Amino acid sequence: MPSVRVIGVLRSPFREKFGTPRQGNLAPGAFATLKVVDEYTPEQSLQGLEGFSHVWLLSSFHLNTNKKFLPKVHPPRLKGRTVGLFASRSPHRPSPVGLTLARLVKVEGDTLHLAGVDLIDGTPILDVKPYIPDSDAAPAASAGWTAEAPFPALKVAFSVQAKADVAAAEARLGLEGLTGLLGDILRHDLRNPRDRAQTKDGLELGFFLHDFEARFVVRGGTVTLVRLATGGQMHKKERRTPPAKGG
Amino acid sequence: MPSVRVIGVLRSPFREKFGTPRQGNLAPGAFATLKVVDEYTPEQSLQGLEGFSHVWLLSSFHLNTNKKFLPKVHPPRLKGRTVGLFASRSPHRPSPVGLTLARLVKVEGDTLHLAGVDLIDGTPILDVKPYIPDSDAAPAASAGWTAEAPFPALKVAFSVQAKADVAAAEARLGLEGLTGLLGDILRHDLRNPRDRAQTKDGLELGFFLHDFEARFVVRGGTVTLVRLATGGQMHKKERRTPPAKGG
Repeated sequence: MPSVRVIGVLRSPFREKFGTPRQGNLAPGAFATLKVVDEYTPEQSLQGLEGFSHVWLLSSFHLNTNKKFLPKVHPPRLKGRTVGLFASRSPHRPSPVGLTLARLVKVEGDTLHLAGVDLIDGTPILDVKPYIPDSDAAPAASAGWTAEAPFPALKVAFSVQAKADVAAAEARLGLEGLTGLLGDILRHDLRNPRDRAQTKDGLELGFFLHDFEARFVVRGGTVTLVRLATGGQMHKKERRTPPAKGG
Repeated sequence: MPSVRVIGVLRSPFREKFGTPRQGNLAPGAFATLKVVDEYTPEQSLQGLEGFSHVWLLSSFHLNTNKKFLPKVHPPRLKGRTVGLFASRSPHRPSPVGLTLARLVKVEGDTLHLAGVDLIDGTPILDVKPYIPDSDAAPAASAGWTAEAPFPALKVAFSVQAKADVAAAEARLGLEGLTGLLGDILRHDLRNPRDRAQTKDGLELGFFLHDFEARFVVRGGTVTLVRLATGGQMHKKERRTPPAKGG
């Protein structure tokens, strides 16, 4: 069997699957860092990477718990319909390796500063490759089933409390752009469309981001950020679907 | 350590590294097939893939023999200059996983028919993913050092003998487009620019493709296909570089 190695662990604001963008391009303000371990002598092995604006991250889908191979999956944006596993980007694959195109903001010593990342904090990274437009882009490609199934686009609102909480969180964490990131996460509807309990209109739900919990409510086509809470514990139960056939 | 599995073995016309295109887009007529093994129930797991025009192949760089990590590499088109490993697509990586964008010609039962493939015959494939233009393309990306180092573009000529050999090989193998494929392979100069013996002007060299050996000569800026020979054995010695620092 081929073997792979971890070249570093990604640090991102996403604390759990719920609230992590489904593709990197959905949240361009999702910043992350990757420190390449000393074993791979980053001061040499990263030379020349700074000239590229984008990189591929090959990552380990380390949170997979599925032991059994399931050939059909339910992509969230197909709302219940299935496609073959290899026609999807589901993490539940024979080789559980993720492929993410990220923007390379800068290289600083042994650390890559990245944006537009759809990976949870702590994800093991197996490889970084430069994005080479000539060989990595297919300008006239057809997008298969994804062409007819765009990601949801809810209207996003912030409560008065949420606006104050966001300003306070930005000041406390020394961040900018939190409003944009929260908007991107919420806009694409992070709920699982197959989970009826979770998708009940008007139900308050929460997801963890940085060190706070973002509480929100979806009513009709509008998602409202209610507040950011600190000191909370993840209540995984409320956002877990029943064991899914086909991941 | 994360683990990966082989979902099938690629069949391609390329018999050895020498003569295998350096990127898939350099040889759009490089056809290949991938039969997904029964264990991964291709009749289900490939459903929906036929709607995509392009796929990612994650492959195992199974011919790597380097045991030691070398942080700098010599990409052929840099003619001796080095870059960091992670700023390159060199196969000699901590996780020896290749990333190839291929055109999906068709899906036939358990088999993908592919084009524009830069992988040697027998390459173990770890994963197939659909190419999703919205998340996999960066239209305004900067190409780093590759922007200033285009692949060589020799003028290609065919001897009278070679023209006859190509026509005979096409008839025998039931192939079309062999002239184009040979032209693409030769045009980008398959010789290693760091190997002085190999790059001697006027030296006849050969590479194996399908079941024949293509013999060629480079003189100045022109490469001439001399003939296609059958029944030959690979003479690896003539096309091997001395053990390279930095792969």
